[in-house]
Parts: sequence; structure tokens; C-alpha cells
Amino acid sequence: MNATKNKLVIVGTGHVGSAVLNCALSFNFVSEIAVIDIISEKAQGEALDSTHSIPFSTGTNVNIHAGTFEECKDARVIIIAAGPSILPGEIPDRLTLAGRNVEVMKDVMTSITQYTKDAVIIMITNPLDIMVYYAQNFFGYPKNKIFGTGTTLETARFRSILANKYKVDPKNIHGYMLGEHGNSAFPAWSLVNIAGVPYNQLDNYFQPDESLDLEKTAASVISVAYDVLNLKGCTNSGIAMAACHLARAVLFNERSIFPVSTTLQGEYGLNHVALSLPCLITEEGIERRIEVSLSDEEIKKLQHSCQSISTVMKSVGLIK
Amino acid sequence: MNATKNKLVIVGTGHVGSAVLNCALSFNFVSEIAVIDIISEKAQGEALDSTHSIPFSTGTNVNIHAGTFEECKDARVIIIAAGPSILPGEIPDRLTLAGRNVEVMKDVMTSITQYTKDAVIIMITNPLDIMVYYAQNFFGYPKNKIFGTGTTLETARFRSILANKYKVDPKNIHGYMLGEHGNSAFPAWSLVNIAGVPYNQLDNYFQPDESLDLEKTAASVISVAYDVLNLKGCTNSGIAMAACHLARAVLFNERSIFPVSTTLQGEYGLNHVALSLPCLITEEGIERRIEVSLSDEEIKKLQHSCQSISTVMKSVGLIK
Amino acid sequence: MNATKNKLVIVGTGHVGSAVLNCALSFNFVSEIAVIDIISEKAQGEALDSTHSIPFSTGTNVNIHAGTFEECKDARVIIIAAGPSILPGEIPDRLTLAGRNVEVMKDVMTSITQYTKDAVIIMITNPLDIMVYYAQNFFGYPKNKIFGTGTTLETARFRSILANKYKVDPKNIHGYMLGEHGNSAFPAWSLVNIAGVPYNQLDNYFQPDESLDLEKTAASVISVAYDVLNLKGCTNSGIAMAACHLARAVLFNERSIFPVSTTLQGEYGLNHVALSLPCLITEEGIERRIEVSLSDEEIKKLQHSCQSISTVMKSVGLIK
Amino acid sequence: MNATKNKLVIVGTGHVGSAVLNCALSFNFVSEIAVIDIISEKAQGEALDSTHSIPFSTGTNVNIHAGTFEECKDARVIIIAAGPSILPGEIPDRLTLAGRNVEVMKDVMTSITQYTKDAVIIMITNPLDIMVYYAQNFFGYPKNKIFGTGTTLETARFRSILANKYKVDPKNIHGYMLGEHGNSAFPAWSLVNIAGVPYNQLDNYFQPDESLDLEKTAASVISVAYDVLNLKGCTNSGIAMAACHLARAVLFNERSIFPVSTTLQGEYGLNHVALSLPCLITEEGIERRIEVSLSDEEIKKLQHSCQSISTVMKSVGLIK
Repeated sequence: MNATKNKLVIVGTGHVGSAVLNCALSFNFVSEIAVIDIISEKAQGEALDSTHSIPFSTGTNVNIHAGTFEECKDARVIIIAAGPSILPGEIPDRLTLAGRNVEVMKDVMTSITQYTKDAVIIMITNPLDIMVYYAQNFFGYPKNKIFGTGTTLETARFRSILANKYKVDPKNIHGYMLGEHGNSAFPAWSLVNIAGVPYNQLDNYFQPDESLDLEKTAASVISVAYDVLNLKGCTNSGIAMAACHLARAVLFNERSIFPVSTTLQGEYGLNHVALSLPCLITEEGIERRIEVSLSDEEIKKLQHSCQSISTVMKSVGLIK
Repeated sequence: MNATKNKLVIVGTGHVGSAVLNCALSFNFVSEIAVIDIISEKAQGEALDSTHSIPFSTGTNVNIHAGTFEECKDARVIIIAAGPSILPGEIPDRLTLAGRNVEVMKDVMTSITQYTKDAVIIMITNPLDIMVYYAQNFFGYPKNKIFGTGTTLETARFRSILANKYKVDPKNIHGYMLGEHGNSAFPAWSLVNIAGVPYNQLDNYFQPDESLDLEKTAASVISVAYDVLNLKGCTNSGIAMAACHLARAVLFNERSIFPVSTTLQGEYGLNHVALSLPCLITEEGIERRIEVSLSDEEIKKLQHSCQSISTVMKSVGLIK
Repeated sequence: MNATKNKLVIVGTGHVGSAVLNCALSFNFVSEIAVIDIISEKAQGEALDSTHSIPFSTGTNVNIHAGTFEECKDARVIIIAAGPSILPGEIPDRLTLAGRNVEVMKDVMTSITQYTKDAVIIMITNPLDIMVYYAQNFFGYPKNKIFGTGTTLETARFRSILANKYKVDPKNIHGYMLGEHGNSAFPAWSLVNIAGVPYNQLDNYFQPDESLDLEKTAASVISVAYDVLNLKGCTNSGIAMAACHLARAVLFNERSIFPVSTTLQGEYGLNHVALSLPCLITEEGIERRIEVSLSDEEIKKLQHSCQSISTVMKSVGLIK
Repeated sequence: MNATKNKLVIVGTGHVGSAVLNCALSFNFVSEIAVIDIISEKAQGEALDSTHSIPFSTGTNVNIHAGTFEECKDARVIIIAAGPSILPGEIPDRLTLAGRNVEVMKDVMTSITQYTKDAVIIMITNPLDIMVYYAQNFFGYPKNKIFGTGTTLETARFRSILANKYKVDPKNIHGYMLGEHGNSAFPAWSLVNIAGVPYNQLDNYFQPDESLDLEKTAASVISVAYDVLNLKGCTNSGIAMAACHLARAVLFNERSIFPVSTTLQGEYGLNHVALSLPCLITEEGIERRIEVSLSDEEIKKLQHSCQSISTVMKSVGLIK
């Protein structure tokens, strides 16, 4: 066993996995990337095409190739983007998707654990929180070493919407979307600020065209996902960047905080569910879950997120 | 009119255009990117999705949005990836493709010239050399300010194949594929070296598993394009990186040399055809075509490339 | 006149200016850097040495050269690091320094305005706030286009100290040092948070070895500057990065917020003084000063900063 | 023992070591940098100052700190920039310098080998080739894991001079300076080309103001080092970039070729001397020395380099 390499494995090379591959190349953070797909031709095609971007790249020389799960044995980070996703126009039946992808994840996790329990696993497959719960609790893999991109993507969308509204660099927007990665995610408004100006004073400071409508903004974070899906046919650019930033935090032991999905252990009185709250990411995965102070209303929304996820988990038999 | 902005316009947001968009973001070289597509929803979807990658990006804050050709008026660089491309399994009938895309290019170039003749235009649309010839010679646009990615992509593939064969960083492989962007492209072997070791001594220095077969290597550069196409369903990662490097050379006036497609003006005795030879790229586009010394056999291949392109150009009525 | 180039001018190539030059190269954000020094040999030496870092750089090809103030005429950004600075062990007599550097700045600003009033000027020369006030108010240069790095550096130090205390990525520490760039700078504690956890709850969440001491922390931000100065002989790495980030915000019109020094116009009831508060930076310089909400105690500290600066300004005759 | 970290150790924090530190930060390639200096205050000051550049950096969060040689035990790469260097105006008495720095290196290598024989060591200390020979042959350290920056810097200067002469991106200049890092380094003209155009045709293709003078160009590569030294007071920017590129090649196992200094083993009939020839760099250090084909005249120059180094080595008792 040899975990010293700067090696990334990407499982699944659909729209999302291939976007992760190309985004990862731009990060110059690994010496090797192996891609795995049940359709091995797809993995080979993606590896080949990306390899052709290296010679003119000013980045590092990365060894990109397709492979099997054996590639995981010396990986530092594994990003799982396997499994069918929601299609444009499809009424997203999470129950059906959950059922299908639990089967996919069973194969994937069983295969990975044959080769390693050292790598940090970053999950993207949907329904995300259910996949995270399943992967963290049923395969004997170190729990801290598995987490999902979670509401990192919703948070990026949220910041993007506020940045656009107030005409400010999104890197200056602070605050998170929390809860489920999906329809019940919500903004923790009480934590939101721009340069220290809290959410309820933003309109005074930055004079937007329309005043801030909390409900509408929260709703637009959710609906913009479907806008992208319907306009473009898939969503992959944003999630790929989110996953790569999480991978970077692991590879360089950055101790960065991101809202990622993990099984709660009593936070906000919740158990037996995975959802997103701010977590401290190190080379070992999640070091700390940060139970940020939420308003009563926000806690209700978190409980609603929890319930929404639990219902599906029960239906597919993951919890009773 | 205001050409002072670091602004990129991407025309066409299919597989290639969207890959260019995401690759361009990783370059951190512009403050604004506008994307244009005849299916405006597609452009909007791509812009939205990529915008969601900005908040966690450690790169610059880029203003990404969909728009019309009016966006070209203050652009520094315009990348054209419009038009249908070859599909997997399709026997690539360049004649049909040429006919269709000449129409597309007519619209695109007419629209662009309404707003600017200042921007440098980088062409990706296929059949590339024909599109370049058409764009350079029929719209009154400054000729130096238009060029095609050309054999930059074949060159990347060629270097990648040699890098893999000799187990060396592809950035250390020097030499070019020249001629047509397509089936008649050929390696200018006489210019090829690795760290100063010429092509005919590489086997001695780097002990590959199989000795170098010039014909086979040349053929594999062409066939790997179809491999990617058939395995993956499209080719976009490699070409996106090539286009972005060319855009960078323009934006930062790098004076870099790349094998790009441009109308020849007597080089190697050839005229009335666009194909790729090494060119010096500045903020004004092509400053210099470098008529590198070729062997007799290589010149024959160049003439063959020329003929191959001319035949199609005649068929679609671009030349007589 | 031609302001379309991505050109940076650095005035002064002492410890700080040369660090700015090398840091700027790593940003890959300009095509040309001109360096100016009254000791023209020093500027030439720095330009030459940095030029030798380009061929192996994977960054952009940058045209680096020494020059005269005429270089400013097509610059987008000018960073001023001219003038003698405080030496290790020296009891920093700001009055003497102010007197000397007002003379230096008179020459510099007079020379610049001969060639441009278009470039955005970023001031580093100390005593910073006095230099900013002088440059903004006595040379007819557009006020928004001049600002000083201000407490951006103190803010970096502050975040670094908290990051180290709480073992968290400093990019997750939010909040600012405000006021004078120098001994009277103070943390605006009421704006400080890590992932939404306010300063007064940090100890609970992140269990540091020692509990947070507000006064001691504030003092250590100031004293660490002298630590660096005395340990290393100068301070340049941190300030160079700060200046380059500000330059990037201008070059790419990022609309980012940084605590920079500018002449107040009634904010917090203060006038006729330049000091640092969060400002929105665009390609035009400062678009907006953000009068963030401060506690009474913080406002007193700001007033103290103001007084401290005003006293010196009076002594050197800049205000009455 | 734990060699899995992305950790860099820099020994010596004078002008060169501190430039390496700041350049390394811009590469975003390690999670931890430890700096060591016999004047521990200098190391602390450099670490502190650079730490203050992290919070606004858009790069990775790097743990920078001063330390002792114990830091080497889990390092991947160690860069040695210790020891006094040549001062401006000093007639460079390499013999005296060699004597002094052999003592320094004895301490450094003895200290390192107490903690590791796993890290790859990159030597910068002068007289370089003598230091490399000493470190490689007297401490039982794996020989492949030690090399010197060698003529990488002269090569950068050479390319920079040609790039400037022919107005071409230096990244397009191919070819190497070989031999001693110092006065007897020479260009291997037979390997030099720009885009495949050999050195003796460059004037035809690129119309320089003055025609190429081989001797003068070779001499200017050597003299420009003294120009930088005398104009600026030290040389550090170029060498820092060279060292960081070599470190990157190791950290990411790039298999890149650089002209680095290593003990020859019969190449060109030479033994018992370290000097620079193109070498293939992997995560294990030097995998392969590439005995490129040289003209008779070039071989004579190499022999002269060898003699020049051997004379000093004998004087300080390293060889008989």
C-alpha cells in the first residue's frame, strides 16, 4: 500500500465527472488522475481528450488514464460522480433516483473498499445526502473520510445571486445555504454579510434595483438549478469547481470550511441523517462539524430538510 | 467604441464552446466573457452554470453572461465555435459540412463586422481551414486578426503520443503537425526533438517499448481524433485548451509561436488556401508566418493538404 | 495616448518594490511591467533578474524593463513604493519620515501627472495615509483613482493571527483592521467572524490553547510588523501580495472589497484625513466607500487614528 | 517516518532562500514550508512575513514556519540555499568560497541525513557543481536524489537574451547552456532552435537589429549575471523560479528535462565531477542523464568546464 502519491480518482465520467476532470487539470494539484466508468470507453475517451490538453497547458504534467477500481489503492482523493442523474424536463422523482443510485453506490463502495480505506471520498452522486449517509454508514469506511459536496453548490449559487444583485465580487459574499442538497436547502440569513454588513442592511449600503426579498432569493437559489438544467441540458460547471475546491482542501490540508454533507451526530438534535452544515476540511477529511448558531426559523427549515431526506431513506430501506 | 476591456466573446456554446468557456475561466485572463448562441437558452444555461463556479473559484471575478453579437463591439478576442460538427460514427463528409458551415460563418462574420474590426478572431469551426479562408477573405476584416486553431490540436496530440512513448513531459517535446486541420495533417519530422535529441535518435536515448514508426505515429495522430470522438461522443477538452492558449497569447501580447491556420501568401509556393504553419501571435493577431524549412517529402504532404482543402473550397464555390 | 495595454508601472525598486515586481509576475495579469527608480541601476537590475525568471515560468510572457516616468502614459495601474522606509531598530519617527517622503511624493506625482491621469495609482509609501491624502488632494488627479494599500496588510496579519490561533484557513477569517496604516490601526471586532461564528463565540467553537484576548490580539497585529522588521530586516512579502491583489481587482474590474486608504468625505463625521475603511474596487479605482457599522468604542479608535494622522499632517504643513 | 506530506524545506533564508520561499508560495504546490537558517531570527522573520501574504492569496493555505533540521524528516523536497554568496564588486574567488561553503555543506548534509534519505535535495549554494559533488558523494545519500539547479539559470538567461533579440516568447526558445554553473558555462548551439529554425538560420527568419554573434551571445549570458549582481546587489528572482520549477517537477513527478548539475558517470568520457547536462526529473530525482550529441568544439568547452571545476575541488581537498 502506498498513499504517498498526489493521485485523484474520478468515478463516473458523465457530464459531471468529465467536468470534474477538466476542472481538476486546471488546479495543477495532482500528478495522476485515473477515471473509472462502467462504460469504459467513455472513461478512455475522456482521458484521451484531456491528455491532449496537457502539451500546451502551462500547468503540471499530469498522467491521465482510464482504469478500474484498483486505481483507488494509492489515491489520495476519490470523487464519485457515478450514477444516472436527473434529466431536463424530468419531474425529479428522488425516490426512483435514490433506489437506482443506492445500487450504483453499493457497487462503487464495495469496489473501493477492496483497495483502500485511506483515500478521502468526495461524493457528488444524487440524491446526495442519501448517498453520503449510505456510504458513510454501511461499508466500514472511516466516517470522517467521506463527505458530499452538499450545499457547497447551493452556497455558490446563493453568493452568485447576491453578488449580482449588489454588484460586488462574490468572493466578498459570506454565508451559507444549509440542509439538504436539493429542494429543501435554505440560506442561513443570520450568518450572511458582505464586508461585515449584515443581510438586513445590505439594501441601504448597496442600493440594488429591487429591495431584498428573503423568500424570493431563497427560492431562486433552488430554481436556478432547474434553470441551468433546462437551459443547458445538465449542470456540471459549478459542481465541478465545488468538488475540486474540496479536493484541494484535502490534498493541501487547507483546514478550510465548506458546507458539506455528512452524517449528523446530534447537531441541532438530529441523528441518522446526512445533510450539510459548515465543516472543517483537512487531509483526513472532516475534522469538525461546526454547529453554527441558527435562528428558530432556520432550525425549523433544517428539521424540514432532515424529514424530507429521511422519508426517502425509509422508502429505500436505508433507515427504519 | 471601447476596446480597452479584457473581454472575450465566445460564439457557439455546443460541446466545444462550453469547454472553451470553462477553460477560459481557469486562465484568469479576462474580466468579462459573453457567450452567444443561436439557441439563446443554451448560451444562457452555460453562462449561468459557469457563473456558479466563480464564488468558490480562487480566480478572478469574471462577469459571464449570454448576449447578442453587439457584445463584440468592445471585445479583445472572439472565439468562434459555432456550427454543427461531425458526430460519432458519422463518415465525415467534409463537403456537406463545409456547405452548411459556410452559411453559418456568413451570418457570424456579417454580424461581427457590424460591431468591430478590432478584435482578434480565433476560429474553431470545421472544416477549419475553409472557414478561416472564408472569414479572412470575404468580409473586409483585417487579415492578420483572424486565424484558426489549426494544427495546434494535432500538434498537442502528436506531442502527447511521443511523450507517452518516451515517458517524458510533453512540454519537452518540440515540433509541429502542419498542413490541414484534419486528415491530411502531417508531422514535420525534421523539426522534431526532445531536449535537442532529433527524432531519428530518440529510440537510442529513451528506449521505448517499440521503435519509432514514422508512418504509424503520423497516422495515430489523425486516428486518435476519431478515437476520442467515438469513445466520448465529441472532442472538446483538447481543443478548448488550444484555443485558450492562443487567446492568452493575444491578450498578453506574448509573441508566442503556434501552428495556426491562415491564408498563405506564397509560402512554399502556395496561395489561395488557408492551412497551418508556425505563426508568431501578438495582440494584433498574426504578426509573422514562419516558413520553416521542410524536407521535400514534407513539402509534398503540404501540397497534398493544400489540394485536399482546395477541392472542397471549389465545390462550395469559395474559389474557382 | 493609449490606455488599452495591460501594463503595470512600479515606482521604487527597494525591498518592497522588488517584491511587488516578483509577486506581480506570479499573477500573470499584465503583458508589460515597467520599473522606475531614482537609482536607475537598481531598477535595471531588478528588471533583468526578473526577466530571467520568465523562460521557465509557466506563466505569461511579460515584457519587463526599467524606464522613466514616461512609461506611465499607457499604464493601467501604477504602484508607488518609492521613498526611504523605516529601518530595523529605528524608533519610527513618522514626522521625519513624513517630511522626507512628502518631497519624494511631490516629485513622483508631478512626474506621473505629466503623462497620465488615467491609470489607477496604488500607494504603498509610508507614512501611508499621509501620502495618500497628499497625492489625492494636491495634484488634480482623479480622487477615485488613487488609494493606498492601507490596512489591507494589517487585515492580513490579523486574519493570519486568528487563523493560527483557531487552526483554520485564513481565507475563512472575515473582518478587518481599520483606521491608520500603522500603530493606531484597530480590529473592527463587531464585524469579525469565522464561518458565521462571531468573535465572541470563537473560543467555544474552536477551542484554542488560550482564550481570545481582544486587546492582546489587537496589539499583536501592530507588534508583528516590528517583529518582521527586526527579524528579517524589512517587511515586503505580505505588502507585495496585498498590493498585487488590489492591482488585480483593478485590472479585472473585480468589484472586490478591501480596506484601503482614501480621503474620507464625512464618513463617521471625519474629513480632511485619509485612512482605511472597506472600499469597493473597480477598474476605475474606488467606486464606493463602505461606512460599515462600528461600535462606539471602535468609532473612538477611528477618531484616535484620525487625530494621530492629522497631527503629523499639520506638522509637515499639509493641513492647517 | 512519514513522507506522504506535500512538504518543502528551504535551508538558508538569505536573498536567495527568501526569494525561493515567496516564489514557492505562488506555485501552490505544497501544504507546508519549513525554513531553516543558522540565524534563526532571519528564518522566523521570513516565515512570518510570507504568512501574511496567505490571507489575501487566492492560492492554497500553506503552513509556513521556521524550524530546525528535524523538519526534514517528512519533507518531499529540500532546497539548499545556505552559505555566503558572492557580493557585488567582489572579485569572485571561488576557491575561498568553496572552502567556506564545503564547511557549511558538511553541517547541512550531516544534519539532513540524521532525519531523512527520502527527500529530493535541490542545491543552489555556490560554487554549485562542487557543492553538488560533495553532497552526492560523501554522505551516503541516494545519488539520484540530489542535484543542483546548475545551468538551468544560465539557460533561462540564454533564452531570455535570444527572446529579446528575436522578439519572440522565451518559451519558444529551445536549447541549453551546459557545463559549469558559472564562468565556463557554454551554449550548446547545435541544439538551439526557435520553432524548429536552427540557430544559424535565425537571422534570416527573425531579422534582428544585429546579426547573431555566437561568442558575444555566450559571453553575455555569463556577464549578465554580474550585471544583475552589480546593479541590484544580489541575484535571486531568476534562480528562485528555476529552483521552484525543479521542485514542481519532483513534487508532481513531471518527468521534465532540465539542465541540472549531477556527478557524471562517464558521459563524454568524464568522471569525478559534477556539472550540468539535460536530465530527466521525476519524483525520485534524476532518472536519466541525457548525453546529448555535442559538436567537437562544444565537447572541448565541456572538458574545459570540467577542468575548471576539478581544479577548485582539488584545492579544497574533495578529489585528489
